[in-house]
Amino acid sequence: MSITLFSASQPVFRNALTNLHHLLEKARADAATRGYDPQMLVSYRLAPDMLPFKSQVFIACDAAKLCLARLGGLDAPKFDDTENTLEELQGRIQKTLDWLATVPASAIDGQEAREITFPVGKAGTRTMLGEDYLKSWALPNVFFHVTTAYAILRHNGVPLGKRDYLVGPAA
Amino acid sequence: MSITLFSASQPVFRNALTNLHHLLEKARADAATRGYDPQMLVSYRLAPDMLPFKSQVFIACDAAKLCLARLGGLDAPKFDDTENTLEELQGRIQKTLDWLATVPASAIDGQEAREITFPVGKAGTRTMLGEDYLKSWALPNVFFHVTTAYAILRHNGVPLGKRDYLVGPAA
Repeated sequence: MSITLFSASQPVFRNALTNLHHLLEKARADAATRGYDPQMLVSYRLAPDMLPFKSQVFIACDAAKLCLARLGGLDAPKFDDTENTLEELQGRIQKTLDWLATVPASAIDGQEAREITFPVGKAGTRTMLGEDYLKSWALPNVFFHVTTAYAILRHNGVPLGKRDYLVGPAA
Repeated sequence: MSITLFSASQPVFRNALTNLHHLLEKARADAATRGYDPQMLVSYRLAPDMLPFKSQVFIACDAAKLCLARLGGLDAPKFDDTENTLEELQGRIQKTLDWLATVPASAIDGQEAREITFPVGKAGTRTMLGEDYLKSWALPNVFFHVTTAYAILRHNGVPLGKRDYLVGPAA
């Protein structure tokens, strides 16, 4: 018995992004309850040279999408990063989830040793085998951006607990 | 070809904690360069009801350690959360890494369907099968606390980039 490349990637990403969608739902409710402009959250940064909240959402979505696209040699839809409200960001997450749901296990399993070359930084690239790419790049990257989104919301007083991140809508 | 439970857990945790150790190294250097008291970082919280930096390190270490201990039915060393400087926290990470390195693949592989019952919250428990426990609880949890530690350092101006989180000492 062993884990498959598909089971270690697609459902993990779907779970993380479903929970991210839930965090934004709680942020919208908090803005309504406390009566502040939710656009403050959309553009909030934890440091002046960190990316804003909306970019955390963009990259979490794209890191998951591009991982499966690269592993499976699939064409993924391109999104233009135009979302600029919490609702629109939830739409972006949902579009990503919808595409992830179309990826068949057969496209991913067996690609453990596929060479994946992907952009890094502004001009570079990096090449890893499929299994390494998932475990030491894509998974940490998706969780990084979901957690940073969580941290931005928590820092601004949105009432979240780790259960919202781990368990999501059922929390 | 497929991923093993061991390869999806132990090396991923070792990588994440090695990179966390590296983040603390950069934090120590930054405190020395800018001439501030690094204890400020040790106790810093992103929100008054979030855990401080040192607890992010404790939990990142313990989530990795306890995952392997539970999957393998192993006795892991217990640490008492007494570390209270950046250097001591690096020692805690190193002790955890040293123990992780002793876990043999044979203790973990084959435990995919083992029932794992673990504490959740202040009084509850949760039971999951080994593979699910790794993918939907332990991995997201470790990355959550490493990323939150990163966010606290970045928020305080420690010069880090995502390469430090993903690549670590080689960044």
